[in-house]
Amino acid sequence: MAKRETAASSTAITPTREQDYAEWYQQVIKAADLAEASPVRGCMVIKPWGYALWENVQRGLDAMFKATGHKNAYFPLFIPKSFLEKEAEHVQGFAKECAVVTHHRLIQGADGGLIVDPEARLEEPLIVRPTSETIIGDSFAKWVQSYRDLPLLINQWCNIVRWELRTRMFLRTTEFLWQEGHTAHETEQEAGAETSLMLEVYKEFAESYLAMPVLRGRKTASERFPGAVETYTIEAMMQDRKALQAGTSHFLGQNFAKASGIKFQSRAGGEEHAWTTSWGVSTRLIGGVIMSHGDDDGLVLPPRIAPAQVVILPILRADDTRQQVLDYATAIAAELRGLAWHHLPLTVEIDQRDVRGGQKKWEWVKKGVPIRLEIGPRDVERRVAVCARRDRPAGAGDSEEIPAAGIGERVLRLLDEIQDGMLARATEFRDRHLRPIGDPRELAEFFTPRHAEKPEIHGGFAVSPWCGSAECEARIKESLKVTIRCIPIDAVPDGGLDRCAVCGAPRQETVVFAKNY
Amino acid sequence: MAKRETAASSTAITPTREQDYAEWYQQVIKAADLAEASPVRGCMVIKPWGYALWENVQRGLDAMFKATGHKNAYFPLFIPKSFLEKEAEHVQGFAKECAVVTHHRLIQGADGGLIVDPEARLEEPLIVRPTSETIIGDSFAKWVQSYRDLPLLINQWCNIVRWELRTRMFLRTTEFLWQEGHTAHETEQEAGAETSLMLEVYKEFAESYLAMPVLRGRKTASERFPGAVETYTIEAMMQDRKALQAGTSHFLGQNFAKASGIKFQSRAGGEEHAWTTSWGVSTRLIGGVIMSHGDDDGLVLPPRIAPAQVVILPILRADDTRQQVLDYATAIAAELRGLAWHHLPLTVEIDQRDVRGGQKKWEWVKKGVPIRLEIGPRDVERRVAVCARRDRPAGAGDSEEIPAAGIGERVLRLLDEIQDGMLARATEFRDRHLRPIGDPRELAEFFTPRHAEKPEIHGGFAVSPWCGSAECEARIKESLKVTIRCIPIDAVPDGGLDRCAVCGAPRQETVVFAKNY
Repeated sequence: MAKRETAASSTAITPTREQDYAEWYQQVIKAADLAEASPVRGCMVIKPWGYALWENVQRGLDAMFKATGHKNAYFPLFIPKSFLEKEAEHVQGFAKECAVVTHHRLIQGADGGLIVDPEARLEEPLIVRPTSETIIGDSFAKWVQSYRDLPLLINQWCNIVRWELRTRMFLRTTEFLWQEGHTAHETEQEAGAETSLMLEVYKEFAESYLAMPVLRGRKTASERFPGAVETYTIEAMMQDRKALQAGTSHFLGQNFAKASGIKFQSRAGGEEHAWTTSWGVSTRLIGGVIMSHGDDDGLVLPPRIAPAQVVILPILRADDTRQQVLDYATAIAAELRGLAWHHLPLTVEIDQRDVRGGQKKWEWVKKGVPIRLEIGPRDVERRVAVCARRDRPAGAGDSEEIPAAGIGERVLRLLDEIQDGMLARATEFRDRHLRPIGDPRELAEFFTPRHAEKPEIHGGFAVSPWCGSAECEARIKESLKVTIRCIPIDAVPDGGLDRCAVCGAPRQETVVFAKNY
Repeated sequence: MAKRETAASSTAITPTREQDYAEWYQQVIKAADLAEASPVRGCMVIKPWGYALWENVQRGLDAMFKATGHKNAYFPLFIPKSFLEKEAEHVQGFAKECAVVTHHRLIQGADGGLIVDPEARLEEPLIVRPTSETIIGDSFAKWVQSYRDLPLLINQWCNIVRWELRTRMFLRTTEFLWQEGHTAHETEQEAGAETSLMLEVYKEFAESYLAMPVLRGRKTASERFPGAVETYTIEAMMQDRKALQAGTSHFLGQNFAKASGIKFQSRAGGEEHAWTTSWGVSTRLIGGVIMSHGDDDGLVLPPRIAPAQVVILPILRADDTRQQVLDYATAIAAELRGLAWHHLPLTVEIDQRDVRGGQKKWEWVKKGVPIRLEIGPRDVERRVAVCARRDRPAGAGDSEEIPAAGIGERVLRLLDEIQDGMLARATEFRDRHLRPIGDPRELAEFFTPRHAEKPEIHGGFAVSPWCGSAECEARIKESLKVTIRCIPIDAVPDGGLDRCAVCGAPRQETVVFAKNY
């Protein structure tokens, strides 16, 4: 039961963000019923409320992919070992953490239990896809003959397996869900433009759907996707001021085209290798939403991806007001469901369960539903509802009485206000914790918690000049556990600094340093 | 290039259905660009046109599942070996054909290539899910405590792996896509009602979306899902008169609840095991659509699942009519896209490629688009379009000139007519090849091709009395390769026969015998 019910001064989630951010994260997931650990190491079960978030992410992104000319397709889950070996850097990047299928049958063992049938060993082991460049490249090589077949713009929604040692729900799991775009182009320039376009799509989606501001940027060589020429990223700042890499878009040059033999007859008549890209976002985005907006009472959902934008909580007494309240609540629900917001019908739940009002309310608070409408017998008489908004802390100032007449207009306006307000607040937070830093002492101070005994919330994004050397990058990583998140494309205040914040040599790039998930 | 273009008497697909049905099937898939074989044994690549069909199947079914109170969730791809062993019959059914993950890392071998790292052997092998009863049961056991937690109505869209020896695209592949519903109930009766309800949802979907008539029925013991108490099925007749099991709904009794420990506190206060069901349809449905409706010119799509319901084919000459034709075509497309059919916007493609008119047309014929609108310079002048419907054989009577004014109304009416007509025609075909048969000699005659040298189209559904013995069932299977598809629930003409068609003993059930996919 929520603490809030018994002690007005405490919070629905224990511990709070300040007390223990990592544990708060786990508790929010549990309280909102988003997901749970599974008996399979590092894999999670995505529960209905969490999966509905993913469905909304899928719907929004899928429409954007299709609007930019991409088509969905589906490629095999398994990748023959020899395929993975085709691109030298690629295999180095994934060989260490892959699930390998070696047999195709179980048989009865001596003790009656099942054993792997040694007779059913595969000639070539199969890897459960950690990403699909090589298997999709094999198809592309067949599909592309001439420049007329280009560009080829494909996306796949699927599951992915990477044998991660340290897992954390949504952020890093052995199996996760994602989309991976794979495209092939006639020229380097076109592939470059595609890489940028999809990065822009991701930024647009993160900001207008998830209310999560992101910085676009380029990765350094050490942080690149294995086999890519350039990796671009969108980086968000979580409320503990760590960075979350929320999506990546890779310019693959001709590396994978050469590895897979994606060749075409050019306009000039010769044979050329195609230029390819790949780009992806995953269920990790849900982790980003939790950590961007959640508060000490649980999840706070941006209305555009909330599985329910409005929940109606009728106060049902065992008397003759019961039916009246239900009828009134149902009528309001019907009116709201008839409205559209961002071209989709409003999603409205009515919680008719016979549980106590306080418990009901707190369950929906913890699930992060943007608007709650409480309706009791007296509200029916007075033709009003008590409207609470989740983007404000529960209690003071989160609720107001609104008239039933015109409630639709009011709710629509409120949804806009919540969606925009959440982005503004997250942006303000990010900007407050992003600052130009020009020397090693200041970097160390910025990234060191004041109290060593607990993992205190600290730091943020340091915008710093960098000499471009892998040594300086490595030194900061080792000493402070801080990485170069990106060489930003979006404008950031650089303080006019021009000497590497690590070694003092002349600036080659301005980079964003941060701790990260 | 399509034969049709050079010889008016031949067909776009070689061979025809009559000549070689199995090969015709493969050629239709190829000509419509639905899918292709992959380098991974038994796995296919689902190409954009094929995947768009699956997306439309998903959208239709998903809405029906949600309308009946189900919620989507996601469970791990991997199943620990010990889980599979929990239900004795279940493991027998799946152990022989499963992909087994035994290791989690590759390393550099002596020759420089990658080898499976013997140090990275899993303590317990993981099975790539062949179905998810056991892994979902593990979650259900946690989610269900009291009768108040029931019913639990969950669905999952995912990929599945069964190591099939003989594969055929869409019909039987090592990896396939499906949905699996899993529900838990308080009483036997409620679980039974759920099993029936979902069978009805499948029938409704097959008939109103896929225009594929199906017979609902119960499976005999030998054809049941491993571990089920009863398996219900929908069975469709393909154009070669073989049966396709298009979907199944299983009443699992308390078998899996006992295996997974799904227990609850009952209303009476005691502890009881839940009653569970599971039900699924897969990408196999696409095979059913191909074989229910395809003709010797390729795919014929029911409008409700066609990725494009209308394709506009402007005839573009390299003169000053070009822009006029394009503008006119674009205006018609915009008008049509503004219309809704079955609550969704009409899907319209304009093929503006600079390829010859004949080639363009035949590509869309082979892809099965329900309506083609051809527009040339003279049609622009006269404000008309030439409208061809794919449900009629290409050539005579498939096209007519229609005025641009009121074209939207005309197209909507035509889509209704095509959708309804396809179901009527398939039903008429099925009924024509379904007949009561009461003795072994007649059964043998019905199910034996007249010419032994080629797999001639023959047979159909024999509605026959059966004594209920597994011996009679096995005898027919061995001698004729014919199985009991179901004990029908839907009314079928049984000819008033009352003696087992195999042994002559008194009838226990009336069954449908057929060859099958």
